[in-house]
Amino acid sequence: MSKDKSPRRPRAETPKGFRDYFGAEVTERKAMLDRIAAVYHRYGFDPLETSAVETVEALGKFLPDVDRPNEGVFGWQDEDGDWLALRYDLTAPLARVAAQFRNDLPAPYRRYAMGPVWRNEKPGPGRFRQFYQCDADTVGTGSVAADAEICAMLADALEEVGIPRGDYVVKVNNRKVLNGVMEVAGLSGEDKEAERGIVLRAIDKIDRLGPDGVRALLGGGRKDESGDFTKGAGLSAEQAEVVMGFTTARRDSGAATVARLRELVGTSVLGAEGVDELETIADLLAAQGYGPDRILIDPGVVRGLGYYTGPVFEAELTFEILDEKGRKRQFGSVAGGGRYDDLVKRFTGQTVPATGVSIGVDRLLAALRAKGRTGGEGAGPVVVTVMDRDRMADYQAMAADLRRAGIRAETYLGNPKNFGNQLKYADKRGSPVAVIQGSDEAARGVVVLKDLILGAQVAAGATLEEWKNRPAQVEVPRADLVAAVRRMIG
Amino acid sequence: MSKDKSPRRPRAETPKGFRDYFGAEVTERKAMLDRIAAVYHRYGFDPLETSAVETVEALGKFLPDVDRPNEGVFGWQDEDGDWLALRYDLTAPLARVAAQFRNDLPAPYRRYAMGPVWRNEKPGPGRFRQFYQCDADTVGTGSVAADAEICAMLADALEEVGIPRGDYVVKVNNRKVLNGVMEVAGLSGEDKEAERGIVLRAIDKIDRLGPDGVRALLGGGRKDESGDFTKGAGLSAEQAEVVMGFTTARRDSGAATVARLRELVGTSVLGAEGVDELETIADLLAAQGYGPDRILIDPGVVRGLGYYTGPVFEAELTFEILDEKGRKRQFGSVAGGGRYDDLVKRFTGQTVPATGVSIGVDRLLAALRAKGRTGGEGAGPVVVTVMDRDRMADYQAMAADLRRAGIRAETYLGNPKNFGNQLKYADKRGSPVAVIQGSDEAARGVVVLKDLILGAQVAAGATLEEWKNRPAQVEVPRADLVAAVRRMIG
Repeated sequence: MSKDKSPRRPRAETPKGFRDYFGAEVTERKAMLDRIAAVYHRYGFDPLETSAVETVEALGKFLPDVDRPNEGVFGWQDEDGDWLALRYDLTAPLARVAAQFRNDLPAPYRRYAMGPVWRNEKPGPGRFRQFYQCDADTVGTGSVAADAEICAMLADALEEVGIPRGDYVVKVNNRKVLNGVMEVAGLSGEDKEAERGIVLRAIDKIDRLGPDGVRALLGGGRKDESGDFTKGAGLSAEQAEVVMGFTTARRDSGAATVARLRELVGTSVLGAEGVDELETIADLLAAQGYGPDRILIDPGVVRGLGYYTGPVFEAELTFEILDEKGRKRQFGSVAGGGRYDDLVKRFTGQTVPATGVSIGVDRLLAALRAKGRTGGEGAGPVVVTVMDRDRMADYQAMAADLRRAGIRAETYLGNPKNFGNQLKYADKRGSPVAVIQGSDEAARGVVVLKDLILGAQVAAGATLEEWKNRPAQVEVPRADLVAAVRRMIG
Repeated sequence: MSKDKSPRRPRAETPKGFRDYFGAEVTERKAMLDRIAAVYHRYGFDPLETSAVETVEALGKFLPDVDRPNEGVFGWQDEDGDWLALRYDLTAPLARVAAQFRNDLPAPYRRYAMGPVWRNEKPGPGRFRQFYQCDADTVGTGSVAADAEICAMLADALEEVGIPRGDYVVKVNNRKVLNGVMEVAGLSGEDKEAERGIVLRAIDKIDRLGPDGVRALLGGGRKDESGDFTKGAGLSAEQAEVVMGFTTARRDSGAATVARLRELVGTSVLGAEGVDELETIADLLAAQGYGPDRILIDPGVVRGLGYYTGPVFEAELTFEILDEKGRKRQFGSVAGGGRYDDLVKRFTGQTVPATGVSIGVDRLLAALRAKGRTGGEGAGPVVVTVMDRDRMADYQAMAADLRRAGIRAETYLGNPKNFGNQLKYADKRGSPVAVIQGSDEAARGVVVLKDLILGAQVAAGATLEEWKNRPAQVEVPRADLVAAVRRMIG
C-alpha cells in the first residue's frame, strides 16, 4: 500500500499459536496457582523449576499422545550438534531430574511444578502452542498410600481455589483391574500383546467414539467418517461384553462397585490386586474424612488407562454451564493423573514407581470465571490528574501519599492539555477515583475527588436517583486526601 | 563400560548452560518477585506476560550488546519457513506488544514483566543460558515525571524486599548531558557521528577498562591484552579531558553537581536540556520525600549511556561483602534502566518515548542472602513415621489433622521396615518434628513426638545441658497431637 522505499518494517505480531496475557489474566492465574501451591506445600511437596530447554535425548523425542517421533516439539540443533527442544510437559523433565539427582533427592521425592510448556501442534480456537501446566508427583514409592494422598490433595486444592464441596468429584479407577478383565476375556499370554494394546487404546477413546465405536474396535474393527479403517482386537461379542462390563461397573456404593469388580476379574491375580488397591485407596481416604461425596471409585473413568500402570484419577466439576449452543452440560474434567512406574527406567534401567496429577490450568481458571470465583484483583488505580503541568511535583506527591497508605495510585503522565482525555484514560484503567486539583483548589488547599464507579454505574443504566446519597464528586482538604479516597473506594 | 547390548540409554543431564532450581531456591525467588510485583502494582503498573517465543523478525535478530546479527538467541525455522526464537530480554517483546496493541492499550502504558529469558552465549560460572528478568516500563510519555516515578518505585521495591534505607542508592545520569559535553568537545555535526559512537561505547566501558583505557579510546585507539586494536575517536587530549570531566562531575550536593554540569555543557542546547531534566527529576523526587540519601544525581554512572537516550539510572547496594579472595568490596549494582525513545519505531515508524528499569533478579537474591534477609521459607514438613504398615490410614489421618491446622506435614511413604531410614529421611527433609506411634502407643491412645531441631542443634555442637529444659521427645495423647506439635515448632 505504501510507496515508502525504506526497508520493509517488521510485523508486530505474536507468532502463530502464541498469545499475550494482560493484567488480570496474569494476576488471576497467578492467584489460583499460588493457592494450589500452598496446598501442595502443606502436603510436604517441594517446588522444582527446571529450565524450558532439554536435550531431545532426555525428552525422549515424542509426546505421549503423538505416535510419530520428533513430532510435536520445538527443537533446534546447538553449536555442538546436540538437539535441544522446549519441554512439552512437566513429567519428562521430572524423569530427567529424578535420574540425574537420584543420589541427592529425598526418597520418596514429592515435588510440584508449575509453568509453561510448548507444543508444536496445529493451533486452533482456544488451543495455544504455549500453555501452563501444574503438576504434583511422588517419585520412588509403589505404595497406594501415595495415590490416596494425591487424590486428597487434589480435592483440597480444588476447594482452596474456590470450587465448593459438592461441585466436584475425584474419580478413581485402576488399570490393573482392566488388565484382569482382559485376562478373563482370554487376552492373557505374550501372543496377545497386540490385542491388549488395541483394547487399551479403544477403551481410552470411549469419550470420543462412544460405546458402539469401542465395541467395533474390540471386535472386527472400525471405519471412521473419513473412510479410514482401524483394525480391531478380534474379540467375540461375548469377550467384548466382559471388557465393556468393566466400564459400566460402577454401583451405588463403593463396596458394591468393589464387589462387582471382583466378579469381573474372576481368578485373575493381577485383577484382584487392582481391586484390592482401589479398596485400600477408598479406606485410606475414608479414614481422613474424604468420603464418596468427594472421592469416588468409578470404573467409568477410562481416560489415560492406556498410559498409566495402576490407579488412575480424574477430577470432574459437576456443576452445569451453558455450552456454545446454549445447552446445559456438566463442566467436566479439570485434572487427571495416575501411577506410571517406568518414569526413570529409560535413563537408569531401574524401575522407579511414581504417581502424580496434572491440573488443567486454563480449564480450572475458566471454571472459576464461570462460577464468579475469581476477578476483582484487576481493580484499577486511583488516577491523579494533571491540571497544571508545572505542579507535577504536587501531583506525584499525592500519588505517593496514597501508595504509602497501601492504595494503588498513579499520576497521569500523558499530555495533560485535554482534560477529557485524562478522564478517558482513567476510565480505560478501571480507575475508581480521579483526583483533581486546579490552581484555584491548590490556592484553597483542597482537592476534588470524582467518583468514577458511580459514573460507570450511571452509564450502565442506574439512575442518579438511585445514587442520590452518593455524591458524584466531593471537595476535601488536601490533608484529608487519603482518608477521603479510602472512604470512597470502601 | 557395560556390555549390555540394549540401545544406549539417554543421558540424564540438563543441557549445557542450563540448571534446575529446587525447593527454597524456587520459593525464595518467588517471594522476592511477589514483593516487587506488589510495589509495581501499587504504582499502577499492570502485569504483562508474553510468550517465550517470538518471530526473529519482531525480536530484531540481535541482542543490544552483541554486534553480529542472529547471534545470541536460540532460534529455529517453523513449518512455514518463518524463523522463531526464544526472547532474549523482556524489552523486545514489550516493543512488539506496544506496536501490536497500540490502539487498545492505555496511553501511557505502564507495565511490569517477570520471567525467564534465554541467551545462546557461552555459559560460565554463575552464567546461565536461562535466567530471570524483572522489568517495569512506561511507554508513551516523554515526561521526566515518568523517569522520576521509576526511580522512586525502584527505591520502594528495594526496601520492600528487605534492603534497608542507607544500604542502597539509586544513581541518576543523563545521556543528553554527555551529548552536550561532546558538542562542547567539538563532536557535533553529522560528519562526526562515527566519533560520537566511539565516545559513547568507550564511556560505556569505563567500569571494565578504567579511565586510562577510555582515554586511549577517546584518543588514538587502544590495543587490548590479546593484541587486538580498537580504533579511537581521535580526540585531542584537551577534548578528551572535557569528556572525562563529565564522568567525574559529581559534587557534594545535587545543586553543586547540577552547577558543575551546566559549566561542562556550556552553550549546548541539548546539554542544557539534559541538565534541566536531571534537576527536574531531583525536584520531583524531593517533593515526594526521596532525598539524595536514596536517589542521587551522579554523572559517574555511565553504564548504558550508549544505549539509552535520556535519563539513565542504576541502583547500587552500598554495604560491603567479602569477595572470593576474602577482600571487602561494595556489593554493587542490582538494577539499571533509563529512557529509550525508539522502542516502537521499528514497527510503526512512529517514535514512542519510553522509560524503564530492569532488576537483576539473581544479583538481588544473592544480596538478600548475603544480608540474611531471605530463607526460612524452606522449613521442612512434620514427618509422620510408619511403625506398623497396616495402620497407614491412622498415620495419614494424623498428617491430615496437622495440615487442617495449617501445619506442613507428610506421611513417610518409603519402605517402613528400617526405622533409622525414616529418621534419616526426616533429617534430609529438614523436618522439625517426627511423629511416632507403634502398636503399644496406639493401644494406649498416645503418640511420641521427637524434636528434630534439638537433635540437629546437638549434632551441631550444642550440649544437651544447654537444652535441659527442652525434652528430646514427648509422649502426648493422640487427641493433643496438633496442639503439642504446634508448641514444639513454636
